[in-house]
Amino acid sequence: MTVSIRALGVHRTRVPLRWRDLDHQGHVYHGTVLTLLDEARTRWLRTAIGVEHPDAYVVARIEIDYQQEILMDHDAAEISIGISRLGHSSIRTAESLTLPGGEQAARAEVVVVMWDQKAHCSRALTADERARAEAVARA
Amino acid sequence: MTVSIRALGVHRTRVPLRWRDLDHQGHVYHGTVLTLLDEARTRWLRTAIGVEHPDAYVVARIEIDYQQEILMDHDAAEISIGISRLGHSSIRTAESLTLPGGEQAARAEVVVVMWDQKAHCSRALTADERARAEAVARA
Amino acid sequence: MTVSIRALGVHRTRVPLRWRDLDHQGHVYHGTVLTLLDEARTRWLRTAIGVEHPDAYVVARIEIDYQQEILMDHDAAEISIGISRLGHSSIRTAESLTLPGGEQAARAEVVVVMWDQKAHCSRALTADERARAEAVARA
Amino acid sequence: MTVSIRALGVHRTRVPLRWRDLDHQGHVYHGTVLTLLDEARTRWLRTAIGVEHPDAYVVARIEIDYQQEILMDHDAAEISIGISRLGHSSIRTAESLTLPGGEQAARAEVVVVMWDQKAHCSRALTADERARAEAVARA
Repeated sequence: MTVSIRALGVHRTRVPLRWRDLDHQGHVYHGTVLTLLDEARTRWLRTAIGVEHPDAYVVARIEIDYQQEILMDHDAAEISIGISRLGHSSIRTAESLTLPGGEQAARAEVVVVMWDQKAHCSRALTADERARAEAVARA
Repeated sequence: MTVSIRALGVHRTRVPLRWRDLDHQGHVYHGTVLTLLDEARTRWLRTAIGVEHPDAYVVARIEIDYQQEILMDHDAAEISIGISRLGHSSIRTAESLTLPGGEQAARAEVVVVMWDQKAHCSRALTADERARAEAVARA
Repeated sequence: MTVSIRALGVHRTRVPLRWRDLDHQGHVYHGTVLTLLDEARTRWLRTAIGVEHPDAYVVARIEIDYQQEILMDHDAAEISIGISRLGHSSIRTAESLTLPGGEQAARAEVVVVMWDQKAHCSRALTADERARAEAVARA
Repeated sequence: MTVSIRALGVHRTRVPLRWRDLDHQGHVYHGTVLTLLDEARTRWLRTAIGVEHPDAYVVARIEIDYQQEILMDHDAAEISIGISRLGHSSIRTAESLTLPGGEQAARAEVVVVMWDQKAHCSRALTADERARAEAVARA
């Protein structure tokens, strides 16, 4: 999974860890890592792509590699998001979670499908969403 | 991702849903689906493979497709787990989450790495774990 | 906090534990105990009081005593709910979480306020809700 | 429940909200409010009282009033903590969760019992913990 470093540099979100993120093994629970990525992605979709509300999309697919334990001593997760593919009604992101030291703890590729909450079905990217997404993908 | 239907039939776990599993969109949160699969996998690893405690492994990789909304009306998730590949120190599972009606809501492939909690590094499958896993894979 | 043992006996819900309920200390997280009680209360409000959907109320106050660690070995929480006071637009419950061995691990008193989701304000109990609640309180 | 405003002013923690904190009603789940308070309390116990690790205490009792809905538009919770009573092996805190506008959304009184993780029983406050706690209580 290749990620545009420049795109990553542009969109970086810091998500502070919480004690409740830990599981009985004392590191951040693997399922909770999706919550951390989701938090960064939701903010990125609004600020970078103009998707005002998370009701406007759903997560259709996730591929994630866990590379390092995330501990409370790390205090926060730095999440970088880029676009790896743009579809008619979907955005495939390349996401990286790094620790304050700069070490990568997880990387993921996520398929976000634009969603029509009322009709409960997928929708095409709006012209504005597409224009912004193309600009991000080019970055 | 091909899944041995027969192996799936053998190991099926029912995980009741909770209202807290829902997100603001009113369906089970995509990150929480990992919690449901994890619950079934942990019980399966103990009963089918003989891994007594979840401290004895870590999740290294997950590939998941979300196919249907999971709602509280579904009441519970039926999770089936089979083995798609067996390594020296890892088990790759093929997992399926179906709704009471029989409809598949999510499918995943998960890489579980056997873990030495004290040394904080991976370990080989024990002879017993391997023998049981091979029997499950053959099923 | 007095609890009607008979009322408790009538409404008992078993909520299976999940590994994710544990925190880094290896016991069920104190905040998650509220999720377990909420799960039982929501089902009780529907079956015993006729509150069809949790959108029809909000939790206004909780008083909870944690008496014993809840561990995965306990497998499930047995939750009993009774009514300690009935108001114009609220129900005060007396709740008890016991372990399979019968030992009480937590007890709580919760104020549930009937809610008008559209108007975002409290509402009076319906005649049917009141009649059922009075029957439960008398039990 | 009286709270020393001055003590509260001294120890204020900002906890950013996450989309996953919301429940199906679109506001922060009542059980998750405990996670937000816990996050602030844990940091406060370390910085103000010198309790290095949360393994060194357990939560024995919580009394919480939910006063306002907490929404994602609020972005973060401002949590203030003071001491309302000091025991031999416990600290009773008075906690307040306010929204960025300054409005109080929840207030709680929490009994924290110092814990001996190895012996699985309560322990007395250390001389240093007591000295610091008394200074905070006097503030």
